Amino acid sequence: MQSEQPVSRFGEVELADLPEDLRERLTPIAEKTGFLPNIFRALGRRPAELRAFLDYHDALMNSDDGLSKAERELVVVATSGANRCPYCVVAHGAILRIRAKDPRIADHVALDPHGCALEPRQRAIVDLALALCREPERFGEPHLRAARAAGLTDDEIWDVGSITALFAASNRLAHLCALRPNDEFYSLGR
Amino acid sequence: MQSEQPVSRFGEVELADLPEDLRERLTPIAEKTGFLPNIFRALGRRPAELRAFLDYHDALMNSDDGLSKAERELVVVATSGANRCPYCVVAHGAILRIRAKDPRIADHVALDPHGCALEPRQRAIVDLALALCREPERFGEPHLRAARAAGLTDDEIWDVGSITALFAASNRLAHLCALRPNDEFYSLGR
Amino acid sequence: MQSEQPVSRFGEVELADLPEDLRERLTPIAEKTGFLPNIFRALGRRPAELRAFLDYHDALMNSDDGLSKAERELVVVATSGANRCPYCVVAHGAILRIRAKDPRIADHVALDPHGCALEPRQRAIVDLALALCREPERFGEPHLRAARAAGLTDDEIWDVGSITALFAASNRLAHLCALRPNDEFYSLGR
Amino acid sequence: MQSEQPVSRFGEVELADLPEDLRERLTPIAEKTGFLPNIFRALGRRPAELRAFLDYHDALMNSDDGLSKAERELVVVATSGANRCPYCVVAHGAILRIRAKDPRIADHVALDPHGCALEPRQRAIVDLALALCREPERFGEPHLRAARAAGLTDDEIWDVGSITALFAASNRLAHLCALRPNDEFYSLGR
Amino acid sequence: MQSEQPVSRFGEVELADLPEDLRERLTPIAEKTGFLPNIFRALGRRPAELRAFLDYHDALMNSDDGLSKAERELVVVATSGANRCPYCVVAHGAILRIRAKDPRIADHVALDPHGCALEPRQRAIVDLALALCREPERFGEPHLRAARAAGLTDDEIWDVGSITALFAASNRLAHLCALRPNDEFYSLGR
Amino acid sequence: MQSEQPVSRFGEVELADLPEDLRERLTPIAEKTGFLPNIFRALGRRPAELRAFLDYHDALMNSDDGLSKAERELVVVATSGANRCPYCVVAHGAILRIRAKDPRIADHVALDPHGCALEPRQRAIVDLALALCREPERFGEPHLRAARAAGLTDDEIWDVGSITALFAASNRLAHLCALRPNDEFYSLGR
Repeated sequence: MQSEQPVSRFGEVELADLPEDLRERLTPIAEKTGFLPNIFRALGRRPAELRAFLDYHDALMNSDDGLSKAERELVVVATSGANRCPYCVVAHGAILRIRAKDPRIADHVALDPHGCALEPRQRAIVDLALALCREPERFGEPHLRAARAAGLTDDEIWDVGSITALFAASNRLAHLCALRPNDEFYSLGR
Repeated sequence: MQSEQPVSRFGEVELADLPEDLRERLTPIAEKTGFLPNIFRALGRRPAELRAFLDYHDALMNSDDGLSKAERELVVVATSGANRCPYCVVAHGAILRIRAKDPRIADHVALDPHGCALEPRQRAIVDLALALCREPERFGEPHLRAARAAGLTDDEIWDVGSITALFAASNRLAHLCALRPNDEFYSLGR
Repeated sequence: MQSEQPVSRFGEVELADLPEDLRERLTPIAEKTGFLPNIFRALGRRPAELRAFLDYHDALMNSDDGLSKAERELVVVATSGANRCPYCVVAHGAILRIRAKDPRIADHVALDPHGCALEPRQRAIVDLALALCREPERFGEPHLRAARAAGLTDDEIWDVGSITALFAASNRLAHLCALRPNDEFYSLGR
Repeated sequence: MQSEQPVSRFGEVELADLPEDLRERLTPIAEKTGFLPNIFRALGRRPAELRAFLDYHDALMNSDDGLSKAERELVVVATSGANRCPYCVVAHGAILRIRAKDPRIADHVALDPHGCALEPRQRAIVDLALALCREPERFGEPHLRAARAAGLTDDEIWDVGSITALFAASNRLAHLCALRPNDEFYSLGR
Repeated sequence: MQSEQPVSRFGEVELADLPEDLRERLTPIAEKTGFLPNIFRALGRRPAELRAFLDYHDALMNSDDGLSKAERELVVVATSGANRCPYCVVAHGAILRIRAKDPRIADHVALDPHGCALEPRQRAIVDLALALCREPERFGEPHLRAARAAGLTDDEIWDVGSITALFAASNRLAHLCALRPNDEFYSLGR
Repeated sequence: MQSEQPVSRFGEVELADLPEDLRERLTPIAEKTGFLPNIFRALGRRPAELRAFLDYHDALMNSDDGLSKAERELVVVATSGANRCPYCVVAHGAILRIRAKDPRIADHVALDPHGCALEPRQRAIVDLALALCREPERFGEPHLRAARAAGLTDDEIWDVGSITALFAASNRLAHLCALRPNDEFYSLGR
C-alpha cells in the first residue's frame, strides 16, 4: 500500500486551529476516543459545513429512540459498504463492533450487505437502507411494505432513510477527499 | 397522473406549527417566494434535522464566492436529474432558470446531464458532479485533473463535490417521502 | 447553456426543399402547430427514411382504438425519459400535457418513470413500456401477465410494445443528431 | 429446448392472408429465400406497421452506397447481439455469413461484439453502433471523432446510426413477440 | 473478420510438446474428436494448471449422476453466453447440440439465456446458473428455494453451482487469451 | 448478526473423514495454521473437486517466480472484494496482511479496489485483475498495454489473469455455500 497518504486531498485542520465552538465541541470526542477522527480535520476546512454536518449527525445517531444505536451504525456500515467508502466503513465499523458487541459483524455487513446473515429485524433495516442507497429512484411502496411487515414503525423507517441519506453525503465527501481512516480505528472492537 | 398526492408519505408540518426559530427563518422565504417549499413542510417532522439541513444548504448555496449561484444550481439540477428526483429537479430547475436567465437549461441538464450542450466551464462543473454522483467509488485523480484543467480552483472543486454530496442526501430524502413539488415551481422562470 | 446549437449534427432540410409529397404531408402539420418540428428537418436529409418514419409513426400514434392518444404519448414520454432523450421528451411532453390536460404529468413521467404516481391503468402501461425499453432481453411472460391483470388487451399490449420499439429508434436518431427541440415546445400546454 | 414454440406470442398471418400489396412485395422474397421470414408473418397482424417497417428496412439495407451490404448486416448482428435478440441474430447472422462470405463471423459478432477480432474499418463501424445501442444517452462527440478518424464519412455514420436505431426497434418487436427464427436460417451460409 | 488470428495471445503448445502424462491423456480426445481443442493448446503453456483444469472439468462434466450430460453442457453454454465467451460457446455449443440432439438449442441458450424457451427443469437449471454467474453476491435463499421447488436435489444444485464456478474461471481464461475456437466446432451437431 | 451460522449450506466434512490423500495433504496446513480453513471442509463433500481445486490453487499461489506471494494475495483480495465474497476476503485478507506486512492493506483493497492508494506496480496488478473480474467480455488490448507499460511480463500477466479466474470460481463456490470464515481469520495479521 502506498505509504504516507495525506489525511485528505484538500488538506486538514488541527483541533487547535478550529473556531472555538468547534474546538469545544470536538475536544471531548478526541479525549474520549483517544484521537480526533480525520473526518473532522478534513471538514474543518469549512467550519460552517462541519457544524451543519455535526448537527445532522448528532440528530440522527445519538438516540436510542426506536432504532438502537447499534442498529443506526448498522445502517451506516451497510450504506458505506455498498458505496465502497473505506473511511466510513473503517470508522463506523469500529463503532458497530463496539455497539453490537460483535467483532465480526462489520466486516460482513460492509462487504456483503445484501447477503450477510442477520437477524430478521436487522435484515429488514439493512434491506431498507440498501433500497435507497444506490438507486434511490427505484425506492417505492414495496420497500415500505416489507419494512412495515418486519415491524418497523414509521419513525424507524424515517431514521433508516435519513441515516442512509446522510451517509450518501458523507461517503461522497470521503471519496472526494480520499479521506484516510485514523490508524486506531482498524483494530477497535476486534 | 394520480390526483391528490400527499406532500409527503410521512405527513407534513405547516409553518405555523414549526418551532419558533424555524418559523422565523422560513417565513421570509415563504413571503419572498409566495409559498413554502414542500421540502420544509416534510422535514418539519424532525426540527433538528430540518435545522441542520438548512444550515448545510445555506453554507453551500447562498454564496457567489468562486462558483456563481447559477453554477451551484447547475450542480443541483444535474445531480438531481441523474438521481431522477422530481422534487429537486422541479424546485431547483425553477431556481436555475431564474439564476441562469435561461428558460430551457434546466430541462436539458436534468434529463441529459452527460450529453447536453454546455459552455466549457459549465461542462467541467457538471462532469465533476456526475463523477461523484452515482458511483462515488469510481471518483479519482482523473476527475480532479480534468476539473483543474478547465480552470476550477480547489475551493470550487470542493463546492461542486459538497453540493453533490448534500443533494445525494436531499434526493434520497425526497424519494423516501415521495415528496410532491409545489405546483408553483413548474412554471417559474419559463 | 451553449447558445447557437444547430438543429442537427448532420444539417437540416427546410420544408421548401423537401420532395413534393413530403412537403404536402408536412405543411398542414407546420401550419397547425405553428412550426415544423425539428425531427422532420433533420430526417429530411433522407426522404425515404423520413417517409417510412412518418408512416410508422402515424400507424401507431394517430388512433384512439384501445389505447387513448394520451396513453400513447405516455408511452413515448416514459420511454424517452428512460433513454434521456431531450428532443422526444420536450416535443412529446408538450403533446402529452395537451392530450392529458395535465400541465405536470410530462415532467414526472420523463424524469421518474418507475416511481411517479399514476392511475393503475397508466402505471400498467408505463411498466410494460419500461420492461421493454432498456433491457429488452429481460422482457417476458411476467410482464405480459401483469399487463393482462391490469386489463390490457393483446392489441393494447402490442401498441405499447410497438410504440416503445418505434421510440427506441427515434430516441437513438435524436441522440445521433444531438437534435435540438424547437423553442416553442418547452412551454406548450403548461 | 421447449418444442412447438409458436411463431409469435401474438399469432401470425400467412402470406396468402396478407393484403395484396404486401403479398406482391413479399412473394418474391419468399420465393428467392425458399421461405417467408417469420418477422413478416408476425408483423402481418398490422399491415400498416409491416409496410412502414419494410420501407424503413429497404431504405437502409438494400444499398451499396458508402457502407457495403455486408457492413450493413454487420451493424445489425452487432446490435442484435448486444440486445440478445435471437430472431435477428439467427436471421441476419445467416445473411451476414453469406454477404461477408465468412462462415464464422456472425457467431463472433453476435456473442462478443465489443471484443471480437475485426478489420479496423469493421471495428470502427461496430464500435459506433455499440455506442448508440444500449445507452444512447452516452453517445457523443468522442464516438463521432473515432468514426471519422477511421475514415467513415458522415453519410456512412448516419447509416450506422440509423440501422442501429431501426434494429433497436426490431429487436424489441422480436422480444415482444418471442419471435421464433425459421429453422432454415440456422444453417444458411455455414 | 480479421484473418489469421492466433490460437491464443500467449502462444500455444502442440500435443507433441506436452509432458507425457498430458499427451497420453489428450491424445484419445484429439483422436476421438478429430482435433485437439484449442483450450488445451493454450493452457499447455502451464502444464500444472492444465492438469488441474482437466481434473476439475472431468470431475464435473463426465457424469450422468443427477444432472444428465446434456444438462451439464446447458449450464456451460448459458454461463458462457452470459459472459459472452466465444470459445466456450462455440466449443460447448457443439457438444450441447450433440448431447441434447437439438441443432438449435445452443444458439438460443448462449444468446438469450434468460428468455429462451426451455422445458421447466431446464429453465430451473439455467436460472440457478445465471443467479450465480454475473453477480454472485446477489445469490441467496430465494434461488435455492426456486431450484428445490423445481425438483432439483442438493447434489444437482451443487453441480449447477460448481459448473457455473468452473466456467466463470474458464470464460476468463479464454477472454484473457482471446482464445480462438477450432474451425471444426462451428458446424458440429448442426 | 445471526448466530450459529453453519460452515456451509451443504454441510461440511471433518479432516478425519476425508480420503487419506486429502487428509495427509491438509493435516500440515491445519497444524501450521492452527485450524482447518472452512473452504476445505465444505469442498470435502466432493473429494475429486477438492483435489483439483487444491492443485489449481497450489500451481498459482505457492510461487515467488515473477509475482511475489504478497502480490498474488493482492489479486485474490481485490477480486474477492469486487465480488463481495466474505469468506475469501476474510481468509485471504489475513494472508495478505501477513505477507505484505501491512495490517491495513486488505481492508482497503477489498472494499475499494479501484480507488485505494497503491504503489504503481500494485495498482497495475490490481487494475489488470479488475478488468477481467466482473465484465470479462470487456477485457482487451488496452488492459494488456497498460500492464506491459507498468513493467509486467507476459508470465506475470498470465498469473494475474489465472488467479483472477480461479477466484472467480472460488468466490462463486463460497457464495453458493454461504461459506462461513473461520473465527481465527478475522484478527490474524492485524
